[in-house]
Amino acid sequence: MSEITSPTLLVDPRICKKNIARMCEKVSANNIKFSPHFKTHQSSDIGEWFREVGIHSITVSSVDMGLYFANHQWKDITVAVPVNILEIDKINKLTEAAKITLMVNFPEVARVLETRLTNEVDVIIEIDTGYPRTGIKYDDFVAIANILECIKVSEKLSLKGFYSHAGHTYDAMGKDEISTIHGNSIRMLNSLKDKFSAQYPIQLSYGDTPSCSMMNEFPGIDEIRPGNFVFYDLMQQYIGSCKFEEISAIMVCPVISKNTQRSEVVVHGGAVHFSKDFVVKGNSRIFGQIVRLEQNGWGEEIKGCILKSVSQEHGIISITNEELDSIQIGDLVGIVPAHICLCADLMRGYQTTEDGILNHILN
Amino acid sequence: MSEITSPTLLVDPRICKKNIARMCEKVSANNIKFSPHFKTHQSSDIGEWFREVGIHSITVSSVDMGLYFANHQWKDITVAVPVNILEIDKINKLTEAAKITLMVNFPEVARVLETRLTNEVDVIIEIDTGYPRTGIKYDDFVAIANILECIKVSEKLSLKGFYSHAGHTYDAMGKDEISTIHGNSIRMLNSLKDKFSAQYPIQLSYGDTPSCSMMNEFPGIDEIRPGNFVFYDLMQQYIGSCKFEEISAIMVCPVISKNTQRSEVVVHGGAVHFSKDFVVKGNSRIFGQIVRLEQNGWGEEIKGCILKSVSQEHGIISITNEELDSIQIGDLVGIVPAHICLCADLMRGYQTTEDGILNHILN
Repeated sequence: MSEITSPTLLVDPRICKKNIARMCEKVSANNIKFSPHFKTHQSSDIGEWFREVGIHSITVSSVDMGLYFANHQWKDITVAVPVNILEIDKINKLTEAAKITLMVNFPEVARVLETRLTNEVDVIIEIDTGYPRTGIKYDDFVAIANILECIKVSEKLSLKGFYSHAGHTYDAMGKDEISTIHGNSIRMLNSLKDKFSAQYPIQLSYGDTPSCSMMNEFPGIDEIRPGNFVFYDLMQQYIGSCKFEEISAIMVCPVISKNTQRSEVVVHGGAVHFSKDFVVKGNSRIFGQIVRLEQNGWGEEIKGCILKSVSQEHGIISITNEELDSIQIGDLVGIVPAHICLCADLMRGYQTTEDGILNHILN
Repeated sequence: MSEITSPTLLVDPRICKKNIARMCEKVSANNIKFSPHFKTHQSSDIGEWFREVGIHSITVSSVDMGLYFANHQWKDITVAVPVNILEIDKINKLTEAAKITLMVNFPEVARVLETRLTNEVDVIIEIDTGYPRTGIKYDDFVAIANILECIKVSEKLSLKGFYSHAGHTYDAMGKDEISTIHGNSIRMLNSLKDKFSAQYPIQLSYGDTPSCSMMNEFPGIDEIRPGNFVFYDLMQQYIGSCKFEEISAIMVCPVISKNTQRSEVVVHGGAVHFSKDFVVKGNSRIFGQIVRLEQNGWGEEIKGCILKSVSQEHGIISITNEELDSIQIGDLVGIVPAHICLCADLMRGYQTTEDGILNHILN
């Protein structure tokens, strides 16, 4: 750590592996499948930590990410975004390397795949259970029946079941709200399974990080695929998905400016490192929470010291008067980012608290 | 363009070169120096378009970016962030390759540089003229005199003058507000020049994109260094820095989902492509403005059609009823990003409307 000179994403492997182990235990207790989402870490090295505990199926958020992990010997990959039919050549390449599950919500997409796929694939249909982004609304039985039939008659597509991302948990707070969303989503999915499983093979794939972290039961669900939990972040701590000490990745940034009158220091570490994502607390936007750096990692949060704004390369940290003397120009500051998925994508690589380096798809 | 299959940052070189030419004319008319900020494009290829019109000094926002452009034969480089003293080895490397100007606002930083620099450098002192990020407040004469004296007695540091970034223009709107900020900033800088120029050599470096685009006179200023103007974006158009037709870069994204009831389409193109920066119009956050794609570029904006939200890989576009039939799954959509600096950093490369490829520091 003493060799860090520029903004660095630091991972504590012990905490990270504990997060993985905890989710594995939950999956075992429920006797369901685990296909962790790799979009958060995007690292084949971290992928190995999953393989070591017996995980063999994964979820990704782009065909490129699928190809990267297929190159690292992952053989069962779900691409959990609606198919981009313009990428058919790349999809065909991906199907050469692994067993692929695609997300198909529209008959016109099924028809293009039927014509242009060179290999058979498994298919999931995305169901909107209250997070209106993509997916067919849970009660649009006509559209659901229509795409089910398109897949059934296809020679290239094999139905696997329904998929849902209850992304509205990210706007929720605490166990009660998450529990309500979780309960509703699972009820909707099971109701669809009941309705269609006489005619079609229906498995249910489900599971954002808040639901999978806070809930213990997943009735009727066949597979979960959270991603963020591998690291957690400030947003997840605010939602209630994790304790502060379960966060396994922080940014380490050098102090380049200090303003005692304003009780601020500025670090090299801005929007191109953290992203512009924030959590809202009262009237404040918080882009990160300062933590105390230690010899081989980090300790508790320093209350009242937050990353309050970011521009391209600069991050402004508001510090308490008590801490004003403890942070000087040339020091390193530890910062828990608001949203680790975007931060990790920007940082394109990791250093570990054990002085190791972890790779990333973009590096 | 017909070969685009995934999110792509498209540059129209004719518009881009016109933006460069327009700023060059303004600089000539004022008989001042132009050191364009290269943090927006981060591309040695686009850098050549500046070199072709006689630009030889540039501004960057990190030592790494300085090294990249030094490798591409730029010989006069200002690193316009306060020195990160932990990067001294990298700074020394940079001084081997080009004439370097560093930003030094603190005596303790000057002392470290004096001890550890292997080559002499020029130095600017950052003045805060109303944008409270880094820099010494314009009226803190004690701190200013102090750092001036530290630099004067140094054998490694040669004073070049004062530098200011009036970043509060980004929160302003229209020519009147920009004019007020511009006038105030220039007055403060000139007043400091008057105060200290008997004892010290003082040049004034100044110039954000809104000021440099909207204002025509820069009394007392020796150098401007805007960056964003090379592309412009939705934020700059809202501020009033540019006309819509002066925007020279857009994102092109494939449509992967459509919801007629909600009048929405979803593209592959999310926070890892656009960033999470937005402009606010009324009660809405706008992450991008949809434009009509044409054979070899793009045309007018499609009014009422906006990128209304982004998650990691998805972008949700709100479309008008009139346009609902014109956008189908598998189509490409053109989108002017809210903030091109962060978008370009994320995209790490460009395609041109003339079917060329432009490189990027990260690619």
